[in-house]
Amino acid sequence: MSNNKIKPSILPGFMELLPKEQLIFNDIVSKITGVYEENGFLPMDTPIIEKEEVLLAKSAGETEKQVYRLTKGDKNLALRFDLTVPFARFAAQYMNDLTFPFKRYQLGKVYRGERNQKGRYREFYQCDVDIVGNGKLSIKNDALVVAMASRALKKIGLTTYKLQISNRKILSGFLTALGVTNMQEVMILIDKYEKITREEFLSELEKLVGKENSEAINNIMGIQGSNDEIISQLKALKVNSEVFNKGVEEIEEVKTYLNIFGVEDSEFTIDLKIIRGLDYYTGTVFETILQGNESYGSVCSGGRYDNLAQNYTDNVLPGVGMSIGITRLFFVLKEIGFIDKYEHNSSVEYLIIPIGDTIHYCAKVSKMLQERGSKAEIYLEDDKLKKKMSYANKLNIKKVVIIGEDEVKSGEIVVKDMTTGEQEKVSMK
Amino acid sequence: MSNNKIKPSILPGFMELLPKEQLIFNDIVSKITGVYEENGFLPMDTPIIEKEEVLLAKSAGETEKQVYRLTKGDKNLALRFDLTVPFARFAAQYMNDLTFPFKRYQLGKVYRGERNQKGRYREFYQCDVDIVGNGKLSIKNDALVVAMASRALKKIGLTTYKLQISNRKILSGFLTALGVTNMQEVMILIDKYEKITREEFLSELEKLVGKENSEAINNIMGIQGSNDEIISQLKALKVNSEVFNKGVEEIEEVKTYLNIFGVEDSEFTIDLKIIRGLDYYTGTVFETILQGNESYGSVCSGGRYDNLAQNYTDNVLPGVGMSIGITRLFFVLKEIGFIDKYEHNSSVEYLIIPIGDTIHYCAKVSKMLQERGSKAEIYLEDDKLKKKMSYANKLNIKKVVIIGEDEVKSGEIVVKDMTTGEQEKVSMK
Repeated sequence: MSNNKIKPSILPGFMELLPKEQLIFNDIVSKITGVYEENGFLPMDTPIIEKEEVLLAKSAGETEKQVYRLTKGDKNLALRFDLTVPFARFAAQYMNDLTFPFKRYQLGKVYRGERNQKGRYREFYQCDVDIVGNGKLSIKNDALVVAMASRALKKIGLTTYKLQISNRKILSGFLTALGVTNMQEVMILIDKYEKITREEFLSELEKLVGKENSEAINNIMGIQGSNDEIISQLKALKVNSEVFNKGVEEIEEVKTYLNIFGVEDSEFTIDLKIIRGLDYYTGTVFETILQGNESYGSVCSGGRYDNLAQNYTDNVLPGVGMSIGITRLFFVLKEIGFIDKYEHNSSVEYLIIPIGDTIHYCAKVSKMLQERGSKAEIYLEDDKLKKKMSYANKLNIKKVVIIGEDEVKSGEIVVKDMTTGEQEKVSMK
Repeated sequence: MSNNKIKPSILPGFMELLPKEQLIFNDIVSKITGVYEENGFLPMDTPIIEKEEVLLAKSAGETEKQVYRLTKGDKNLALRFDLTVPFARFAAQYMNDLTFPFKRYQLGKVYRGERNQKGRYREFYQCDVDIVGNGKLSIKNDALVVAMASRALKKIGLTTYKLQISNRKILSGFLTALGVTNMQEVMILIDKYEKITREEFLSELEKLVGKENSEAINNIMGIQGSNDEIISQLKALKVNSEVFNKGVEEIEEVKTYLNIFGVEDSEFTIDLKIIRGLDYYTGTVFETILQGNESYGSVCSGGRYDNLAQNYTDNVLPGVGMSIGITRLFFVLKEIGFIDKYEHNSSVEYLIIPIGDTIHYCAKVSKMLQERGSKAEIYLEDDKLKKKMSYANKLNIKKVVIIGEDEVKSGEIVVKDMTTGEQEKVSMK
């Protein structure tokens, strides 16, 4: 390489795929967004660059340090770090032009300058769905969102997922009833439940709330059984807290509607360990792990919030939504070998090879195939047949049509199946 | 609004659409990319943030001042300003993993800090297609690219477009044969042909090349007639220049293959005024104007280049491609009233309204409709029927299915067409 060349490379923490994997990535995306669309969710697209004051209207916590900033002219600009903040801004800004309940999905890249480590990306696709109401929103929507997570994962062929559902009101009502005052610290500890040993958890908990309360908390966390059994046991606790009872009532409704929306009990578990951070969600919360690959964490999560856009408007917009970090999901699916076996029909189906001066006829065949909904391309270079066939092989094109003078005269073409080697004669009439 | 609220707004020069228009935008995008896919082009996606040294390996000229830069850690980062530079970097970087001819399309946002003016965007979608060969690439590909431009515009329902095609070799060979040495200045002037008066053009030209040459140039620029007639007249000039003759030969081939690929002579004109900038394209160049709305400029343009990735590799990668600035195209189509009349079937088709406790049955109906490929949503809020119907109206949902106890019992549902008011009884069996 000459000295004046720049080494072609991308930044660490950025994902870039070769065509074969990009086809799969896109197939996964279109299956997920397809589920959202068939359920009446509308597409939304917002700028990647926004005013810093808008993006950071609410303290973004740890994320704030990771924000990419840029200065152009006299405005402070930043790259969005999620799709929730832009959605809140959008909903407040166009409030009067939107029809509520407003159901939107959004696919887009977001940016976080995270510490460089395997499987963590600085630029990644998120695909979010949310339903927001104007002033009120039925609990049925919580179930719809979780049901769509299930459908989306099924659609891409994942069968090992498990939805873990809780309701923030249950634990917060319970802790209040116990008289726990440092609730936030307790919640942070519970959020870490899976990452520490049982002993560590208990000892930390005891330090925070004392022996008696820690036993009560440990008991409720330890409730086991079917979803119905867990709900029964929660009810049987007869906790003297409206918030707790409301939480149990809500999770029971979510369970009922999940079943109605086609999600079977085997697909989800009620799990009080699910917290999803501290200050955003207010009711239903859920995560999705891959059974046998729990260490990768949740691949799809979300929940219910009381007020989407309080930093931008006085209008109260309760909602429920979820987010799939598609770039990370793709990474995980690759790691567990799912991508290698992924079946899709998004590759090119036909390669049409002219022999001699038959391109006129090849163009006719190609047009016919495309009008029938197939992807078809003509090999346009003057290469040897072997090279042309090798092109089909390398690109995994399943069917090759060779067109010479004979085919033009007879109006009959031969379609060769590259997998089976079988040849089929097709009349162009 | 309370004082502690941040005004929800976006930056000037950024496009954001309400759902109704976003549906149309997305429909246009999917029709365009659909044409690329059915012709065997593979999807590609590159980071929006790249190393500054990579993005600016080749001086980006005027654009360089418009680049958005950001600093994170010790690397100089910038936002891509087109999709060509990342494509060149990609082709050089993964050279050994790609199959040539490599046919790719890429849809993505690019960034330019342009002066704020109507119809100019700082963040905009480009949709590029390119075919690059390893060392060589048949001229037939030039015709394929132009043919795809025609198909893509037809697919979205545009009928007023006109493709304007030239070949850079024709003028550059002609000028060389005339002994013109300040070719670049002359090319810049010709590039401005449509923006200045005929008199200005002639007077400027005479200043640059003298009276005799200016007349010769004016003559060749004035050649009129059908595409075949223009080619005949160019040949009849018997210019003593290999480059010129090669250019004429190439444009004749492109014309022939365009016809073969289904583009009729009425869709395109050979037009020597088409230059497309100065230092990138080397052969075929084309633009696309909307007849009757020429003032908006080209909505789709491209051409042939000799060497895609010379800044990153010694490998010679000739190619041909084109770019559609979709954000700007959408703006133009809105200005000329095309978007208001745009027909598409990407809205939700069915709204299912439960009356009483029939959501179980509504879920069944919804599932059935979705499995048949329809978009269907259930109205989940406990609102008055009037409000539910108004939701359908506002979102332009064409068909409403009201399900009460009677429907559940009889297994017959009534589908109401919101446009015609007609009702149809459908048995669920």
